[in-house]
Amino acid sequence: MHSFKDLVDDFAEKFSVDHFPQQPETLYEPNNYFLSIGGKRIRPVMCLMGNELFDNINPDAYHVATAIELFHNFTLIHDDIMDAAPLRRGMETVHKKYGDSTALLSGDVMLIRCYDYLNRIDASYLHHILAQFNKTAREVCEGQQLDMDFEKQETVLLNDYIQMISLKTSVLIAASLEMGAIIGGASEGNCKHIYEFGRNLGIAFQIQDDYLDAFGNPEKFGKDVGGDIRQNKKTFLLLHALEVATTEQKTELKTLMQNNPADKVERVLAIFKACNVDAWAKELKEKYVQVAYKHLDDIAVTSVRKKALLELGAFLVQRDY
Amino acid sequence: MHSFKDLVDDFAEKFSVDHFPQQPETLYEPNNYFLSIGGKRIRPVMCLMGNELFDNINPDAYHVATAIELFHNFTLIHDDIMDAAPLRRGMETVHKKYGDSTALLSGDVMLIRCYDYLNRIDASYLHHILAQFNKTAREVCEGQQLDMDFEKQETVLLNDYIQMISLKTSVLIAASLEMGAIIGGASEGNCKHIYEFGRNLGIAFQIQDDYLDAFGNPEKFGKDVGGDIRQNKKTFLLLHALEVATTEQKTELKTLMQNNPADKVERVLAIFKACNVDAWAKELKEKYVQVAYKHLDDIAVTSVRKKALLELGAFLVQRDY
Repeated sequence: MHSFKDLVDDFAEKFSVDHFPQQPETLYEPNNYFLSIGGKRIRPVMCLMGNELFDNINPDAYHVATAIELFHNFTLIHDDIMDAAPLRRGMETVHKKYGDSTALLSGDVMLIRCYDYLNRIDASYLHHILAQFNKTAREVCEGQQLDMDFEKQETVLLNDYIQMISLKTSVLIAASLEMGAIIGGASEGNCKHIYEFGRNLGIAFQIQDDYLDAFGNPEKFGKDVGGDIRQNKKTFLLLHALEVATTEQKTELKTLMQNNPADKVERVLAIFKACNVDAWAKELKEKYVQVAYKHLDDIAVTSVRKKALLELGAFLVQRDY
Repeated sequence: MHSFKDLVDDFAEKFSVDHFPQQPETLYEPNNYFLSIGGKRIRPVMCLMGNELFDNINPDAYHVATAIELFHNFTLIHDDIMDAAPLRRGMETVHKKYGDSTALLSGDVMLIRCYDYLNRIDASYLHHILAQFNKTAREVCEGQQLDMDFEKQETVLLNDYIQMISLKTSVLIAASLEMGAIIGGASEGNCKHIYEFGRNLGIAFQIQDDYLDAFGNPEKFGKDVGGDIRQNKKTFLLLHALEVATTEQKTELKTLMQNNPADKVERVLAIFKACNVDAWAKELKEKYVQVAYKHLDDIAVTSVRKKALLELGAFLVQRDY
């Protein structure tokens, strides 16, 4: 059994190889650049952990983990084009550095490369893994489309937002764990539990991310708070505030969003607090965390095997702000 | 045994189903629109023909054929973004009608859908087909990147151009035939021959396309001739002319390309003719056709099985201008 940290180091080492041919350099160098600027590699590690929850790690789990990490990076390259984002992880985005057309095509070829890695696994579960991978990939695209749609809508219901977050970010976390579990020989029931553990943990993580952007301690959070508020980003907090605020508070919120005064962050936070959005968000996050842990509890393996997943949960969803 | 035309009708009927979920409509409607504006569906039919060259058509060949047609449409949607093309088959392109971001994401989800169809085939050849499909998909991206690179270069060698054309268009034709052959149980040797038949035929087709754009009979060709010349497009004809022309002719060609006078097409054609580019192109095309047919001859099946492929060859590479 490996700790979460051991698996992070192990995967980072195995992943630091060339994933693309040398030529044409104009196509592949952008992908090598993007992979070189880092990332926490959490999703592929989840695949290894999903495997080890049920059995010793099978070499096939590394192939699937690599496909997962490449897929995640493909989505980032294409999302950055759609969002016209200049920076990612503090570095220039691919489309900014190499142009939109090359970023588009380099992303395409990175997606195709995922399937080369998937094609290395044993035929006995290739159909099953491919089905799960394809479904997840499709859902991630649906989540991105809904996110773009929502940005254009004036009103978004909280439940629709949760559905979008689930598709855009949580299903890949969930599927990473489940694909590892499939390779580890997990039963259908256990596969469902590990998937739901990941999906609920992913939603809790996103709620926490929104919470920290508004209420986090800047020193611990590592970036300026209030970024989402300044950009009028639809978040768990804003959508809930718009649902529970008084007519006066709603009018003030909308005026602040339109006019962008210098004290916008401060005044929006004051409304959030008056509406108890902070306490509500903590409670909502805790609800998803509890559901996640219930699914982990229900998996029929000895508790020693679950240790790394508990470490992962603690890493993703801290209880301490 | 089916004729080429029978298979075209057969595939068109089988392909006219919904390939995507209903929701989110903003993501999937653009793909349904694009598939509805047509296309000759030549590549998937080649897959069926590759199968029937060796055995009765296996239902799996339709799954692979569908994946091939969706892949081809995915490349068109993304290429149209990169080329900023307003029209395709006389209709608005996806990015023009729905915006670049949606076209990008709809294309991504169309590529992912290919792998759903591939995942329906029998495990006995899934690894083999996936390997061939992935290699081809990667090469098509490489061809598109080289095409974009060449447009920015002043000089392109004819051999490099042929390599680009081979990757951008011929390998998909070749692989469509070969993947059908794999399903039909063809030997490794026969697979290589059918692949090379398709690859050489594809290059011959592209030479013919360039020839007809310059020297074709406008009534038979169905579109205005001289479009490539007006746009300074790098073609077989232009690259060869730049290799064999005298210093004076080269200077005149470059001046015409820079200044775009009203009689540009006429004057470029005069230089092409003075350099015997027309006869050279016919001869080069014929060379590739001959190589293609030699590979078809070498396939160890009865000649009656080859009839549909000969019809296909005649359809793609007419000897009559």
